[in-house]
Amino acid sequence: MAEWEKLFINANLATMAKGYGNAYGQIEHGALGVSEGKIQYSGLMKTLPGSTKHLARAPKDMADEVIDLGGRLITPGLIDCHTHLVFAGDRSNEFELRQNGMSYADISKAGGGIQATVNATRAASFEELYESAQTRLLSLMLEGVTTVEVKSGYGLDIESERKILSVARELAAQHPIEIKTTFLGAHTTPVEFSGDNDAYIKHIVDEMLPTLAADGLVDAVDAFMEGIAFNEAQVRAVFEKARELNIPVKLHADQLTNTSGGALAAEFNAVSADHLEYSDEKTIAQMAKAGTVAVLLPGAFYSLKETQKPDIAAMRKAGLDMAIATDMNPGTSPTQSLLLMMNMAATLFGLTTNECLSGVTRNAAKALQINDNTGTLEVEKNANFAVWNVKHPAALVNWFGTNPLAFSCFKGELQMLADPEFEGYF
Amino acid sequence: MAEWEKLFINANLATMAKGYGNAYGQIEHGALGVSEGKIQYSGLMKTLPGSTKHLARAPKDMADEVIDLGGRLITPGLIDCHTHLVFAGDRSNEFELRQNGMSYADISKAGGGIQATVNATRAASFEELYESAQTRLLSLMLEGVTTVEVKSGYGLDIESERKILSVARELAAQHPIEIKTTFLGAHTTPVEFSGDNDAYIKHIVDEMLPTLAADGLVDAVDAFMEGIAFNEAQVRAVFEKARELNIPVKLHADQLTNTSGGALAAEFNAVSADHLEYSDEKTIAQMAKAGTVAVLLPGAFYSLKETQKPDIAAMRKAGLDMAIATDMNPGTSPTQSLLLMMNMAATLFGLTTNECLSGVTRNAAKALQINDNTGTLEVEKNANFAVWNVKHPAALVNWFGTNPLAFSCFKGELQMLADPEFEGYF
Repeated sequence: MAEWEKLFINANLATMAKGYGNAYGQIEHGALGVSEGKIQYSGLMKTLPGSTKHLARAPKDMADEVIDLGGRLITPGLIDCHTHLVFAGDRSNEFELRQNGMSYADISKAGGGIQATVNATRAASFEELYESAQTRLLSLMLEGVTTVEVKSGYGLDIESERKILSVARELAAQHPIEIKTTFLGAHTTPVEFSGDNDAYIKHIVDEMLPTLAADGLVDAVDAFMEGIAFNEAQVRAVFEKARELNIPVKLHADQLTNTSGGALAAEFNAVSADHLEYSDEKTIAQMAKAGTVAVLLPGAFYSLKETQKPDIAAMRKAGLDMAIATDMNPGTSPTQSLLLMMNMAATLFGLTTNECLSGVTRNAAKALQINDNTGTLEVEKNANFAVWNVKHPAALVNWFGTNPLAFSCFKGELQMLADPEFEGYF
Repeated sequence: MAEWEKLFINANLATMAKGYGNAYGQIEHGALGVSEGKIQYSGLMKTLPGSTKHLARAPKDMADEVIDLGGRLITPGLIDCHTHLVFAGDRSNEFELRQNGMSYADISKAGGGIQATVNATRAASFEELYESAQTRLLSLMLEGVTTVEVKSGYGLDIESERKILSVARELAAQHPIEIKTTFLGAHTTPVEFSGDNDAYIKHIVDEMLPTLAADGLVDAVDAFMEGIAFNEAQVRAVFEKARELNIPVKLHADQLTNTSGGALAAEFNAVSADHLEYSDEKTIAQMAKAGTVAVLLPGAFYSLKETQKPDIAAMRKAGLDMAIATDMNPGTSPTQSLLLMMNMAATLFGLTTNECLSGVTRNAAKALQINDNTGTLEVEKNANFAVWNVKHPAALVNWFGTNPLAFSCFKGELQMLADPEFEGYF
């Protein structure tokens, strides 16, 4: 009688679990057994139940379906824990103008910048938003991403924010990928509140957040704390409301200046603080103590041609968990590749390859509070994983602008067979 | 009676031809007519032969097959004019070690670096080399690349160099993509000549180059001029032999230091000089005068964490034609994405979006001496082009880690339908 529904053999497992005593929680010559959407076995081939040293028991008998991976790498499904995936319009024209020498300020005066995206997103129908977001979602899925976070923040009024978050829920309903929604009303102040950030924050706290939360659309609450966005008192007001509603918080913090945003996030036990280029040692220590994950966004750093790098040495010293995400958005991080972000985190910020893989799996799961059931290849966790046409995890980080995905598995179901040549079944 | 075999209508044409008086040689509301592998019409919809202002003549009647692109962008097929696509082995382990803090020197002492790739390539069979190179070639084709240059240089003896160049020829025979081969014997000195670069150069000049040229495997000759590679006298010897054999030359020049490599290239009327981070104004002016194309390789710059950028302002001032390529190789530019290189040329080097598109089409064609028949969407040129799921050329440069290809056309044949959702046929 078969033990499991599916058994993957001859795999190199990067379990990303802690406590294996090596990088990647790696198990070479490994096998992965799957039933009922969960991982049932994750370990050496030679310790498969009923096996002897010589594999006397044929793996064929051990599962309804046995898939020989021929030494391929399996990682946990990748997790993109910071995206602005749902938006309308394109701002490539602004990029063209900037490269031709026009300043950000002049582009903004001419109606560009985030306001252009807000206008386009408000004007777009649900269907239009859904279609364009789906294209971007499929790009992520084709790279082995099995969980994605999606922020609102280009609507900035109740109806438009509801539209964005509802698109995210509908995408989740129609695709096997898991989607966590984040309400980012405090992204920027819309024109109808122009010049009165406090009044807009009051509107968020009194109307927008409670309404959308009651609609069941808000898994987490985010804000943008920066000189050009909202100050500490304003963010605090939003966070207090979120706490009252029992919704976890996160923060765009210390991206362009040091406002100790990471420290405020820690004070509210935020699940994550994101960007952090200017966070100092004190803030980093507070985040570590609070269990707040540092989400690094090298795509925005690269795209904005920033030079101040996050203090990785201090993060390591403090034992702060680091995640990596795309920050996918049409203005400051127009990318759809989490694999590329791993390379950029290594090349631009100096992360090790093990830190990069941890950043898009285990630590990203923690940033989304789903680490109890995903983010590593451990027994009882969801069978969300990616199979790659490479032998070693470092190859996923070293190569950039390359997608070696063979296929993905979402809660035990094989999907998105990116490599039609793959013939591992028998 | 149909005028053409295929007619693409409702297209935004980035012809990349000179003399249109706008960026990209752009034609909005355009059409492209194709027969016998050549472009027969490239212009406005409304000036299609037989059309009136009101398009009284149905486009249906004008070709055997009419394809409505719904406003999509057409560009010339992309051209990657500098790659080391054929090699064996992977050096991701070295990347892992470097990120863990090991120095290049120590990695080299431990048997890493280019020597590791030479050893693996020499040991690989023709079939093994072919299979791994084909995977990389398909990655390029999936991004709209229709011509690629492939260098030898990981063999460094006659048999191994022949094997590499023969793999390139076989890839060309089996795929619709056009491949130009380059003999790069003067890449580094192999162990059997260790410490005697002059003797190795003599071997190249007397034996390797004439033999492989006689085999019909050498479309161009390249060399690596640098303190860590070959000096001017050595490169000169190789170039003189190439001139005697009537084979065009190109050069890896001024990448890590200013050795006036670009000037030597110009002296030999090289088709291109590549890298050029350290080239000075005088060298740049000489290259422009000689018609030598500047091939920029931002992937290597990025990967090596270089800080000295090529002098783009001087190149513009001199009227030097700039191309952009992947430099795809397992050590210093492990990338397979020419689209990403466009973004890096803009973001890291400051090129305009028009310069980026020119760099992977018209100017890359010039660097390979195929600009008479490819590189722009002009009548009589080969019908090599790419159709993209974007409206505007700047979107191809602005987004990074994204592939919006709908499909490609190789000499009139549609291939590599990357977007199965595309339904433009009627």
